[in-house]
Amino acid sequence: MADPIQQLVQHLSRLPGIGEKTAARLAFHLVRSPESQVRDLAQALVEVVEKIRLCSVCMNITEQVPCQRCSDPQRIDPTICVVSSPSDVVAIDRGGHFQGRYHVLHGVLSPLDGVGPEDLRIDELMQRLSASADTDEQVTEVIIATSANVEGEATAMYLARLIKPMNIRVSRIASGIPVGGELEYSDQATIARALQGRLPL
Amino acid sequence: MADPIQQLVQHLSRLPGIGEKTAARLAFHLVRSPESQVRDLAQALVEVVEKIRLCSVCMNITEQVPCQRCSDPQRIDPTICVVSSPSDVVAIDRGGHFQGRYHVLHGVLSPLDGVGPEDLRIDELMQRLSASADTDEQVTEVIIATSANVEGEATAMYLARLIKPMNIRVSRIASGIPVGGELEYSDQATIARALQGRLPL
Repeated sequence: MADPIQQLVQHLSRLPGIGEKTAARLAFHLVRSPESQVRDLAQALVEVVEKIRLCSVCMNITEQVPCQRCSDPQRIDPTICVVSSPSDVVAIDRGGHFQGRYHVLHGVLSPLDGVGPEDLRIDELMQRLSASADTDEQVTEVIIATSANVEGEATAMYLARLIKPMNIRVSRIASGIPVGGELEYSDQATIARALQGRLPL
Repeated sequence: MADPIQQLVQHLSRLPGIGEKTAARLAFHLVRSPESQVRDLAQALVEVVEKIRLCSVCMNITEQVPCQRCSDPQRIDPTICVVSSPSDVVAIDRGGHFQGRYHVLHGVLSPLDGVGPEDLRIDELMQRLSASADTDEQVTEVIIATSANVEGEATAMYLARLIKPMNIRVSRIASGIPVGGELEYSDQATIARALQGRLPL
């Protein structure tokens, strides 16, 4: 195989979910693609590296600091929604059901993978909360919206223990049968959660 | 989503087998990756575009023209192996069982996808064969090694009809039970082929 292609295969196979065979298939596809298309992709990669920063307030990825959401005067809800990744912000914002601000942890606690509290943006969250305490924009509630798996739950518990002493309400997004989901096909853990989290009608 | 990321997602989702969700996952991964890693990938893309050409003889992708295989004096077998893509050359060469030269068609005949003979490097193959006719390096056999599916077979038939009148032997790679494969689990078409292509012991 020609050397530049081997190089490309190597770099592509570092991406998550892309093994050596897929990388080779992609590389051969790129070789056959119009030159402009490959250059555009390279340019898009460079632009991401050069333009994307972390917002100094919410730690989300952004082009401007502070980010669009943090500087949006429409967001007056004194609530912070804590998520594990920038894509979660996109997912929640898509629905338009949340009008508050966000905080991105960039991961979840996972001792087995060697991810401890110091690897997440938890310090930044705590500073943000204590800084808001004596201002007009005091945060009244923190909604923890990490995933409903073991790591997500552990992270939520850990954060709740840190935040509660500050006299800020801490809540967790509900876990249960997804809308449109069939009870019959739901797993036992989900059904148990749905029963546990039942609400009065 | 920040604009450079959206751009990157768009460019990534043009790759084969990568939908919008996978592209977004890759893009978010790249944003979190070390800057040098992303730059290396971009550089590898640009190098492929700038350095990779088609060999003037065999039409394989190469950095030098004619390519390494075409200028290799060790390859004295007067046989040309016709394949549909550069990755097929790599696959055949890996075994070291073939010592002749290659010709890459860059595709197979597929009327449903609008791929006709003029879209493949068939003209170049015919010119190469007729040019070899009166030289020391006369080609004595063309092995057609396209895949054993409908398009591959059709392409093989088409080429055989073109090449036979030139008094060059044309052969087709064997099709049958793969080595290590169980007869029990082979499909009917493969078993039929294996019987049809039986060889005397």
